[in-house]
Amino acid sequence: MVSDLRRRLEEDAPLSGDIIRVDTFLNHQLDTRLIAQIGGALAKAFRGKKVTKVLTSESSGIPIACFTAHELGVPAVYAKRFMTGYMDSDVYAAEVHSFSLEKSFTLRVSKRCLDRNDVVLLVDDILSNGQDVLGLLEIVAKAGAEAAGVGVAIEKANKDGGRVLRQMGIPLYSVVTVEVEDGELRFL
Amino acid sequence: MVSDLRRRLEEDAPLSGDIIRVDTFLNHQLDTRLIAQIGGALAKAFRGKKVTKVLTSESSGIPIACFTAHELGVPAVYAKRFMTGYMDSDVYAAEVHSFSLEKSFTLRVSKRCLDRNDVVLLVDDILSNGQDVLGLLEIVAKAGAEAAGVGVAIEKANKDGGRVLRQMGIPLYSVVTVEVEDGELRFL
Repeated sequence: MVSDLRRRLEEDAPLSGDIIRVDTFLNHQLDTRLIAQIGGALAKAFRGKKVTKVLTSESSGIPIACFTAHELGVPAVYAKRFMTGYMDSDVYAAEVHSFSLEKSFTLRVSKRCLDRNDVVLLVDDILSNGQDVLGLLEIVAKAGAEAAGVGVAIEKANKDGGRVLRQMGIPLYSVVTVEVEDGELRFL
Repeated sequence: MVSDLRRRLEEDAPLSGDIIRVDTFLNHQLDTRLIAQIGGALAKAFRGKKVTKVLTSESSGIPIACFTAHELGVPAVYAKRFMTGYMDSDVYAAEVHSFSLEKSFTLRVSKRCLDRNDVVLLVDDILSNGQDVLGLLEIVAKAGAEAAGVGVAIEKANKDGGRVLRQMGIPLYSVVTVEVEDGELRFL
């Protein structure tokens, strides 16, 4: 399982600077067999935690959230980042900054979708600086809910996100952890 | 199966004008059991067509595309509507207009994800005016690929999308078809 994702990263993920291009299998074209495996691994890692909701942010986390939630038998929720179609006006919100896009976004979750009884597993495709996940943790806290932990497909070890979450005491499970160094992808 | 989606629409989908609010189970919070059922129904409807890719657009079609593609054993692709993270510069593109947002968007699919050998099933959560689907059909045509048809969870019969697709001779399968009239949702 870990080896399937690792193999795809070795074979199909060219680097553009320190960006790992996973758009042919993880966040544009979707290898749903692989993503279902990743969802299964994240569900397994947090199965003991009595998770009631899986939370991610729009858009690239949605496929992993779907398969993780389906495996756990609980709903998924994706925080909206863009104004598209109907959005409840009564929301929990957090401002997040994208370093790669040099732009800030507001993540929004309807108050009808999270409450103080929820135990929330946060998932995403790639953990880099962790800004999105920190925004989602803020939303979970605003809802008075409990964060069960964070699960990601790929953790980039030379960015701060993983270190920050561990320092905060948040359980973090990464299917693979990689480092980009001198234009090469190294597995840790 | 049809009855499960119909029951959720009857019980959990208040109307805001002619907008059907499905954000507690279909496009913000996700009832993955229900969406997997919908994906199964769409896969079944097009199973004879030798589909090689399932295509949708960011973001609300992604969950249905994931489960449909997983059931068919083929990759899903979501056309990007927003500039987030890495995007190939070599793309097929189509301009689409959102009547509800009074705004135009560019849908983009990397040329590495579609080619003339593909038989493409287009899926979405809701078929209303059909602008997104028409944009996706344009992208499929630009790639020289074949459109197997269009599958949606909910077709709004008092919007033009369904009629236009049928008039064009595109096979269309809608899990449920509804009409919004005098503030009421009617099933056809």
